This record gives sequence, C-alpha cells and structure tokens, in this order.
Amino acid sequence: MANFEAYQEYQRIDDFEEDSPPGEEDLLVHVPEGLSGYDKTKTLDSVFLNSNIHIYQFHQKNGFACMMLSEFFELFQFLFVVTFTTFLFNCVEYDILFANRAVNHTGPGQNPLDRNKVSLPDAILPSQQCTERIQENSWIIFLLIMATIFWVYRMIKVFCNILSYWEIRQFYIKALKISMDELCNFTWQEVQDRLISLQREQQMCIHKKELTELDIYHRILRFKNYMVAMVNKSLLPVQLQLPLLGNLVFLTQGLKYNFELILFWGPGSLFQNKWNLHPKYKRAGNRLELAQQLSRVILLLGVANLLLCPFILVWQVLYAFFSYTEVIRREPGSLGARRWSMFGRLYLRHFNELDHELHGRLGRGYKPISKYMNSFTSPLLTVLAKNVAFFSGSVLAVLIALTVYDEDVLTVQHILTAITVLGVVITITRSFIPDEHMVWCPEQLLQCVLAHIHYMPDHWRGNANKSETRDEVAQLFQYKAVGEKGQTVNRDCSLAAA
Amino acid sequence: MANFEAYQEYQRIDDFEEDSPPGEEDLLVHVPEGLSGYDKTKTLDSVFLNSNIHIYQFHQKNGFACMMLSEFFELFQFLFVVTFTTFLFNCVEYDILFANRAVNHTGPGQNPLDRNKVSLPDAILPSQQCTERIQENSWIIFLLIMATIFWVYRMIKVFCNILSYWEIRQFYIKALKISMDELCNFTWQEVQDRLISLQREQQMCIHKKELTELDIYHRILRFKNYMVAMVNKSLLPVQLQLPLLGNLVFLTQGLKYNFELILFWGPGSLFQNKWNLHPKYKRAGNRLELAQQLSRVILLLGVANLLLCPFILVWQVLYAFFSYTEVIRREPGSLGARRWSMFGRLYLRHFNELDHELHGRLGRGYKPISKYMNSFTSPLLTVLAKNVAFFSGSVLAVLIALTVYDEDVLTVQHILTAITVLGVVITITRSFIPDEHMVWCPEQLLQCVLAHIHYMPDHWRGNANKSETRDEVAQLFQYKAVGEKGQTVNRDCSLAAA
Amino acid sequence: MANFEAYQEYQRIDDFEEDSPPGEEDLLVHVPEGLSGYDKTKTLDSVFLNSNIHIYQFHQKNGFACMMLSEFFELFQFLFVVTFTTFLFNCVEYDILFANRAVNHTGPGQNPLDRNKVSLPDAILPSQQCTERIQENSWIIFLLIMATIFWVYRMIKVFCNILSYWEIRQFYIKALKISMDELCNFTWQEVQDRLISLQREQQMCIHKKELTELDIYHRILRFKNYMVAMVNKSLLPVQLQLPLLGNLVFLTQGLKYNFELILFWGPGSLFQNKWNLHPKYKRAGNRLELAQQLSRVILLLGVANLLLCPFILVWQVLYAFFSYTEVIRREPGSLGARRWSMFGRLYLRHFNELDHELHGRLGRGYKPISKYMNSFTSPLLTVLAKNVAFFSGSVLAVLIALTVYDEDVLTVQHILTAITVLGVVITITRSFIPDEHMVWCPEQLLQCVLAHIHYMPDHWRGNANKSETRDEVAQLFQYKAVGEKGQTVNRDCSLAAA
Repeated sequence: MANFEAYQEYQRIDDFEEDSPPGEEDLLVHVPEGLSGYDKTKTLDSVFLNSNIHIYQFHQKNGFACMMLSEFFELFQFLFVVTFTTFLFNCVEYDILFANRAVNHTGPGQNPLDRNKVSLPDAILPSQQCTERIQENSWIIFLLIMATIFWVYRMIKVFCNILSYWEIRQFYIKALKISMDELCNFTWQEVQDRLISLQREQQMCIHKKELTELDIYHRILRFKNYMVAMVNKSLLPVQLQLPLLGNLVFLTQGLKYNFELILFWGPGSLFQNKWNLHPKYKRAGNRLELAQQLSRVILLLGVANLLLCPFILVWQVLYAFFSYTEVIRREPGSLGARRWSMFGRLYLRHFNELDHELHGRLGRGYKPISKYMNSFTSPLLTVLAKNVAFFSGSVLAVLIALTVYDEDVLTVQHILTAITVLGVVITITRSFIPDEHMVWCPEQLLQCVLAHIHYMPDHWRGNANKSETRDEVAQLFQYKAVGEKGQTVNRDCSLAAA
Repeated sequence: MANFEAYQEYQRIDDFEEDSPPGEEDLLVHVPEGLSGYDKTKTLDSVFLNSNIHIYQFHQKNGFACMMLSEFFELFQFLFVVTFTTFLFNCVEYDILFANRAVNHTGPGQNPLDRNKVSLPDAILPSQQCTERIQENSWIIFLLIMATIFWVYRMIKVFCNILSYWEIRQFYIKALKISMDELCNFTWQEVQDRLISLQREQQMCIHKKELTELDIYHRILRFKNYMVAMVNKSLLPVQLQLPLLGNLVFLTQGLKYNFELILFWGPGSLFQNKWNLHPKYKRAGNRLELAQQLSRVILLLGVANLLLCPFILVWQVLYAFFSYTEVIRREPGSLGARRWSMFGRLYLRHFNELDHELHGRLGRGYKPISKYMNSFTSPLLTVLAKNVAFFSGSVLAVLIALTVYDEDVLTVQHILTAITVLGVVITITRSFIPDEHMVWCPEQLLQCVLAHIHYMPDHWRGNANKSETRDEVAQLFQYKAVGEKGQTVNRDCSLAAA
Repeated sequence: MANFEAYQEYQRIDDFEEDSPPGEEDLLVHVPEGLSGYDKTKTLDSVFLNSNIHIYQFHQKNGFACMMLSEFFELFQFLFVVTFTTFLFNCVEYDILFANRAVNHTGPGQNPLDRNKVSLPDAILPSQQCTERIQENSWIIFLLIMATIFWVYRMIKVFCNILSYWEIRQFYIKALKISMDELCNFTWQEVQDRLISLQREQQMCIHKKELTELDIYHRILRFKNYMVAMVNKSLLPVQLQLPLLGNLVFLTQGLKYNFELILFWGPGSLFQNKWNLHPKYKRAGNRLELAQQLSRVILLLGVANLLLCPFILVWQVLYAFFSYTEVIRREPGSLGARRWSMFGRLYLRHFNELDHELHGRLGRGYKPISKYMNSFTSPLLTVLAKNVAFFSGSVLAVLIALTVYDEDVLTVQHILTAITVLGVVITITRSFIPDEHMVWCPEQLLQCVLAHIHYMPDHWRGNANKSETRDEVAQLFQYKAVGEKGQTVNRDCSLAAA
C-alpha cells in the first residue's frame, strides 16, 4: 500500500517536471564563423550536451590549474600511502628505534669519550634486505599488485579528465572571454550571464532559441533534483529502525555513490547518455520486468561491494590514520565537532539550488546550529567527565611537578607516554563539561537555525529544549568523526534487499 | 546608633514578610487512595514539610543517578587524595626517578648490548617496606586516623542522602508522573505546574487549599531571602576596611557555611525544624539574653574553626594542587579568569529568585562584565610585562633554536625545566599586555552589564572609565583564583568578634 | 608637468592653512603669582612653546613612571641583546651542549653507578677563557665599541628626556592639579578642558586671549597634518611601480623617520624652532636654490643611511630573532596576522585627528577588515596547503604513534626536531585552508569597514569580491611580518634620487 502511494507520488513528480524538452534528442550545434582558430564544433558540442554541469564545476573548483593539481595530488597521495606503509612494515628496524638493542658504532678512529648517538639511518634496513622481506610475504605482494592496478586505472581516468578540463578551459577563454587569471573574480552569476548572451548571439544549442537561467539550472541539477525528491519522499532506504538505537539515518558518501551508480550513470541504469530517461521506463507495461532487472543490477553491485570491502576498509583505515592522528593529538576537541550530514544536505536542499547556494545557506546556519547542539549536555556524562578529569589531572599534576623539579623523570619508561595520554584524556573530558557561564536558550537558537535552513516540523515548535528535538536535529547535523567512520561500513545486504 | 537603625530595618523586614502563614505549624498531610503501592503518607509528609527545596534541587541536579554518582565520587575523591598522597610520600624512591642512582638490571641472561632502561616499577618500593615507613611516622598515622573518621562520617551522611533522594525519586515517578529518563526534558516551570495541579487534586498539604507559585518560591527560598536581605542591609560583617588595601569584601564558601550554621540550621540557631523561627525570638524582652546566647554560639564555632583549621588547610592545599596544577600548565591564562563572587551572587540576587533564574541572569551578564573588566589594564604593569616577556622570550628563543638544531640539548639538566618555566612566564605576562586593536568603550559595556544585573549606583553613571568604578565592580566579579584561595583563610576572630 | 601641478597644489595648501598665526613669533609667557614654589616661567615657556604635544604624549603614555620605566628598559634591552649575543658567540661550549663530547665528572669520591649528568655550567667557559676569545676577534671588539658609543648617546638622551618628563609632571601636578595616581582616570578631553580654563585664568600664552580646542589640536598635530596632506596628495615617493610586483607601497618606520628628519626637525630642515617655517622658504625667488640645498641634504642623509645600514641590519636581525622566535613557535598563525600599515595610518587619517582618536577609529575597523582580508583565499594555495598538510601529517602521525608506544624513539637523533618542524609546518599550512563553513560576504564586510575608515573609492563599490579591490585594501592593511621585515630594507637610493 505504502509502496503504491509512493509510486503515485513518483508519477506525479514525473508529470510535473517534463523529462526532456521536445526535440532535445536530436540536438545540432551550429557554430558561427566568429570563433576561429579552435575546433569549435567538437568542443561546443560536448560542452553543451553533457556539461553545463562541467562549466559550473570548472568555475566552482577555481579553474584548470587547481583541478589538475588536485587530481595529480590525489594520485600521488595514493602512491605515497601505499609505499610509505610498505616501507614502515618492511624496512624499519624497530628494535633500534625503541632502544631495545644498542647500535655499535665503534670503529678504530673514534674517541671513546664520544657519546653513542643513534641516528635515523641506523634504524632503516638496507634496500636489499628490504626487498627480500617484501618478496617473502605473498600477502603484501598481492596487495601491492591490486594497488598498482587501481592506480593505473585512476591515472588513465585522471588523464581523460584533464583533457576534458582543457576543453572547458578553452571554452572559457575563447567563447566566454574569461582568462584563467580573472576567473576567481567572476561570480557564477556573471559567468551564467555571459553564457546566456553567448547563446543569444551564436545559437550554439539549436532546439531552443533563448536559454534562460532556469534552463541552465535544470541541466546542472538534473540528477540532484531527483535525489532531493527521493530523499524528501523517503523513497531511498536511508532511515533504519534499529531495535536498540531507535530511528537511525544512514547515508554515507559510499552509499550515495552506489545509489547514483544504480539510478543515473552506472551500466544498466535508468538514464541513457547521462541525460535522458531510457524510453522503455516510460511504458507502464514494462514495469515488472524492469523492476526485476533493476533488482538484479542492485544484487550484482552488492556482491561487488562485498568483494571490494576488505580493500576499501584497509585503505580507509590507513588513510584515516595518516590524516587524523595528528589532528587528534593537536586538538582532540575536534572529535566533537559536527558538520551538516550527507542526509541533511539532501533533505534541506531546495529544488534547483546550486551547490554554492546550498553551501552558503547551510554555512550561515552553521554557527547557530552548533551552538544549539552544544547547549545540550548530558548531566550524567558531565559528572563522569568531571571526575575522570580530576583523577587524571591529579596524576598528571604529580608528573608535571616531578618533571619541573628534575626532567630526568622523563627518561623513565612510559612517563612521557603517560603525560601525553593523560593530557589527551583530560582535553577530551573537559569538552564534556559545559561552561559554567553558558546561557541556555534553545528556543531562540533553533529560530536562528530555521532562518537559514528553512525547515522546521511542527513538533519542534516550543519543544526546542526536548531531547527528541535534539535527536532529530542531530540527524541533519552529524558528528564529523561518525560521518567519516560510517563510510567504511558495508551496506550491501540492505542494498540487495531494497 | 547605626546598630539601632539596622535593628529597626530588621523589624520592618520582619513585619513585612509574615514569618510563617497562620496554621502552618500544625500541618497534616492527607493522601487520597489514588496513589497505591507506595508509602505515601510518610513520603509526602517529609517531602512537603522540609523539602519543596529538595524537589527543586532534585530537578536542578538532574535526578537520582547524577546525584548518587556525585556523592559517591566525592567520597572516592577523598579516599583517592589521602591514599595517593600517602603513597607519594612514603612509597616512591625518588633517587631512581631522578636518575641520581642507577638501577642494576644486570642478570646472567642479559645481552650486555641492551640498554639499561628504567621503568616505573623500579622506582616504587615493595609494599612491605612501604608500610614499615608509614608505621614509623606517627604524624602520618594521626592524620590517616583523622581522615578515616571524617570519611566514615561522610559515608554515613551520603547513605542518608541517598535514601532521601530515593524518596524524592519515587515522588517524581508516582505522584508527578515524571520518569527519570524524561526528567531532563522538563523545565522547573513544568514540574511546578504539576505540583500545583497535584495539590489541587489531592490536597496534600492541608492548611491551604490552593498552592500558588509564590508559596512554592517562598518555601524554597526561605533562608536565601533572609541572607539576601542581610547582605543588602549590610548586617553581615563581610565588608572590611583594611588600612592599606581599602574597602575589601570577604565572603567565602566557608564563611557562608558558618553563617548559615549559626543562623539557620546549626544547633542553637534561630530557627527550629529548619523552617520556623523559634518563638522565643519573637518576644522583645528576651533580646539581650538571646544576643548573649548567640554570641556564645559564635565563639564556640570560632574555636572549632580554629582547631579544624590546619586539617582543612592541608586538605585544601592538596586538593588545589591536584585540581589546578594541570590547568595552570595547560592554560595559565585561566589564572586571570573571573567569576561572579559569592558576595555578588547574594548582593545582586532579587528576592524570590530561584538559583537557576539567578544563574541564567548572571550568565547573560558574564560576557559584557568580563569585557568591561578586561578593558582596564594597568599601564605600568603593561610596560613591566612587555619587558619581562622580551627577556624571557630572548632566552627561550636561544633554547628553542638550540633544540631545533640538535635535540640533545634537552638532556642537559634543567634545560627542559627552563623551557617549561619560561613558557609559562611568557604566557602569564602576555595576558597582561592588552591587544593593540582593543576598542575602549567602558560606558557601553557597563550599560550592557546593567541590563542583566539590574544594579547600578548613581556614582557609576558617567564614570565607567574611572578606576573606582572598576574596583567596585570587581567586588561583584572576582578573580577565580582569589575566590578559591580565599577559602583557606581562617575567619574565626572576626566571627567571634562580630 | 606633473611636478608643476603638485607644486601648485602645495601652494594652495600653504595658502589655505595659515602657517603661523600673526604675532606668534614673538611669544611671551606671563605667569601670575598664583603658582608658587616652582620655576614657572621656564617650565610654562618650554611647555607652551614646544610642547602642547608633550602634554598630550605624557597623558597618552600614562604619566611619569611608565615613560621613565619604558626608557630605562629600552636602554637595558640594548645592553642585554649586545651582551647576551656576545656571550652566546664566545662563552658557550656547544660540543658539550650537543653531547658531541662527553663531560668527565669522574673523581675519586664518586659512585661509579651514578649517572653522568651534564649540567648547564659544564657548557659555559670560564670567564678568563671567554675574554681571551673576545680579545682575539677584532670584529667583535669593533662592534662592541660601536654599540657602547650608541648606548652612551642613548643614555644621555634618556636622561634629558626624563628631565623634561619631570617638568611636565610638575606642570600636571601644580598647574593642572592632576596627581599622577589619578592621571589614568582622566580622559584627554578632561585634561584639555583644564588646560583651556587655566589659560583663561592665568594668560600663560600672551598672543591669544582665549585658547580653543582647535588651537591645541593645531599645535599637537602641526607636523602630522603636513604629513597627512603630503601622503594624500602623493607628494612623498611611497608608491612604487615595480616591473613584476605591480603597484607597491613602501613606507616603513625608518623611512618615515628620515622624511621627518629632512622636512621637520633635522639640521637643514624646512622648519625652525620645531614650529615655524623658515622665512626664506616663503620667498618665491629662492625656490631653485632651496631645492638644490634640500637635494644636498637628502643625498647626505642617504649616504649616512648607507653607512649605518649594516649595523642597523645586524641589530634588527638580532632583535627580531629574540622577539619573535618564541611567538612563531607558540602560535605560527600570528605570521599571517595583519595590522594597519604605516601608509594606511597616514592615508586614512583625518586632518586634526589626534593619535588616540585615529587609534580608536581604526581599532573599531580592525575586526571587519581582518574578516574581509581573511575571506579571500587563493584556491591554488589551498590545494597545495592541503596536500603539504597531508604529507607532513602522515609522517607526524607515524612519529606520534611510535612515541606513544615507546618514548625512547625521541632519543634517536633529529626525531624531536622533525616532530617540532612538522608541527610548525602543519600549523602554517592549516592557516591557508579556509574553514569549510565560512560564509562569503565581502560586500557587507567592506561596508562595515567603510563605516569606520571613512574611505572608499568609487571603483570598490560593487567590486568587493574582486582581487584588485583586495590588493588595494591590502596596501592599507599589511601583514605584520612584512611591516617589520620591511624596516630593514635600505632606501637610500630612492631617497637621494627623489
């Protein structure tokens, strides 16, 4: 029953927003003689068919140099993580680093009074010994081969991307007359105006004489609008009812990627050419068959996810370790930072709202919603945190006093570790203890949030101080750490079952 | 003369606020049949006689679990401080920690190339040697016995408290229908409404048919209102005229405790049953005799304070060391933080203002008053601070440069201590140097403060930039550190002389 | 042609603001009998002729004690930097500090089990050896002699200053009836009112009966107003057109000092008695000759600057090292802090605006202009910074993990250095990565800035997001670090050529 209703809603959306304007299938690009010295037909064609969206992204990502650099660095990061990890696991003599074994530097020409200093190269194995160790371990070799294959695939893709960026760069320079140096001075509004006036002059896109702002928005946001609609109508299985944890929202980058693969641009998806809905989906008779076909695609994708899972897990653990260890050491409070959740970003998005508009709107709401979430403190946790802080602080106080009196204490094993760990523990616990001068005014804060996110169900009104309201807001505004950890979790089963 | 005037004022207050409503002495609690399965008569009786105030505190302290946990942790903190201190003084071999004496690990099975690492257990004496040391020192044994007696007394009291919390918990659940999980969602306003409607339905408290908000406020704030009145009329000896330091306000937690003991609920106090004024205080003829009796009580309390002083001092020094050493290390700037002083909290309190209302009001005023106080900087201190910072910074710069060049410098004795101490010195001095871009607008800030604290004598108006105004504000808004150190000072003499 | 126009403008300024009121040349100070017990004639004379400006500075610098202390500390800082540097270069045995050579403490009475601790005195040479080393090095001796000469000159000047401060102090106490304790309670407005009423009563300054606020402002700001006019009319060569860097503003403390020396109070300057324009500059016939004479003065000053350059450079490098190393270590982010530039302070100054008024106005504009400047981020730099932060963070993560596991890793050479350096690198790179929740609203921020600085050329309006606008704002609001480094650069050539 619920499914049927949802289906009817789906139909209505379909009717309301015309899938593709009549005649757009047989586009023809007509380029006047004005733009010489550059293969216009090809460029304009590809630009206008696939990629108003690319023009937009090119502007948002600040032009060719930035995009190219990002892509190269991404490649290099992967290479670095793989080789550095391999190096750490195979080529370091940890016994020497940890001073469990002394280094013997004594040679004939050395003064016996000189101290025996251990330097970093002493702890690194010679490269020959190192390669031997790697060759002995078949697991590592297997992982390295997998990584190489993935890396080569990525490299080819990066190469293709860069070619297409180059075309868009030429389009900006030749057609829109915007040089790369000036790009950062142009707002998207201004770029769009140039695009529209270009169309008026040169009729690049034949099926329509006048290109309006709405046309451009529609092209850029084609799939985004579908996603927003599906999330608002709860058609995607992102809200789970778990026995103990209650109503939970689960939507990670990975899951979103999978959804988009299935629906929009994967093999066997509902759309063709990254633009038009397959004609067969428009006939009511095919429905059952197509549903089975889609279910098969989802199952296959689930299996693929399951197989790739261990590799992705290893990669994400390594990447998180390299990225966040230092952050946690420096400011452990960042563990408690929140950001708009993936779900919130879709749920709160308006139809036809571009990325930078959404980003600006949610950015303006960030401060009040952070304050709102932070103004809730669990009293039980506060009592616990205060006491843990006291006990850790006591031990730390003694260690600090001893160290100030004579810093040789630090050479005793694990004293430094203890100081570091206690310091981190105290910083974390302190973040749970609310400021004694905090003013508690959830109702006003929630009003401020509303002013920017434009969403407030009736049962929030007057209940801003209730924990239920807080939990619902938390679905939109998630812990950063959760958002990132959550990505490693596998969701194949639920996908296959959907 | 002044005394007589004060006395007349006192009489007027007495007349104005009727001490106890007629007939309240012979209360009777009538419980209907509706509340079954729980000994209502007893609970409701105790709840309604002594402790509208307990219902309020139970709500403010977030329910049974939090209160119980707090009490247990308090017991445990005492235990921890005592045992940890005893352990540190008797069971640690500091010579080994400070590397004045080497540890001899050499055994037959050891590789001579292995480094001799000192681990923490090496520096801890075996338990037998440890107990011997303690048994030799009779002072420590005496202190330990005192501590044990105090701890057992505390434990019994905690046990009684928990029983009474349990009763209030039952009252919340059975009578007010508020489960403990939901408690944090209820504001005190809502709890109070339930209390009033409960009275309307079930007539728990017989002498009055309708219970109003004012009745409840009066019950909760009975003693607080008296204190506020006495502070406002300057009846309590909290303002001292010292020869050099000028007008000083001295009101610590300990002094307030003593005042309350004398006036409200100690043995020989003015009130009986923690509620009614003794009838004998109402007859004018007794006045001289009663004054002598009170003076005797105060003298006795002063002597008791004097005797307990060394123990309290030792405890407070230890507690402060364990609590604040780490804070000072981490952010020495917190030494300069201020908070509303005990005196300010009483002086600025309205009659019939509950704790959370006062807290919210002063909390809203915290930011402007902090800014106001911080905008005053002593120019002389600034010059000194800048130069101390420069000289410490110079030495530190050299040490840092040497360390970065070769970190073996750190193994030289006292270098690390020097770096730490210089770092702390610089942070402290920097806090005395005002920001060069600070905007100086004391008049506006004081207006903002006024908006929340609702108090501003005429001679402040237009003189916000004067140092006298600043000093008077400082009486209400004290250094945190002073507030906490001040508690250790003994006030027996002034008490006895009062 | 341009020169002629500039000259005409100069003439108009000259005409507009009467150089000195008629009759002021032959001032006479008349002191009534009322002020007894203090040599009024001399004091009031010097006070009123040269130094309304001194009265103002005395108030702004918070009175005698602060000014004296500042002067003494400045002397002492110089002494300290010179001796400490000499000490560091000649009297420290770095081999022992860096543990390249072991210390031999072994004596007959020593326990062989005792560790060999290196203490700081071990690394310091005995004073005899130290002086020998210094005597061998003739360069150091030369520098020391130069420093001594400069120091003695400074000391004499400080002594003179203090004498004049003392006179002003007496003037404040005796004539204005403001004691030094109360000085900080007086605003300049109030001091000025007293000055005016004093004149009304006692006719200290004869050529004018009534002294108005404007008179006092004119006296204090005589030279400042000229400087402001010259900067606004672009008469001073502070804006350079460099081939690669574009339009650059170069105005340092040193250059400003040179300008003032040439124009106002150096030998051969345009003004006599620090107050009146030389009469010869008023005759048009002398113009060519005077211009040549001025050009000669400038050339001489340029040569003097060139000769003193190496000494000033050495001093500034040393001073910067001692002052900023520790700051950079503690908060490397302060490298990116900005302040109103010297040029901005002159360009944005109103005529007849006192220092504290300008300071307050620019201080109020500090926050919005900082936000405005910080809201610009170079996308390319962001990509680079993110990746540098990732790679440094990865290595740091491994080092932290190793250290937490076993802190003996720290004894390996250069590990601690690596941790420190990587930490600083990461902090610096992080400061280039914009906050992801930042809201971009340059237009509003620039409006806020305008409200305080009262300056906005037409081409900024509506172009607040353009990088050209940002660059122009940056001329007024410079990196602190640049402002301080820039001072070391020599500008003789451009000066001589001017």
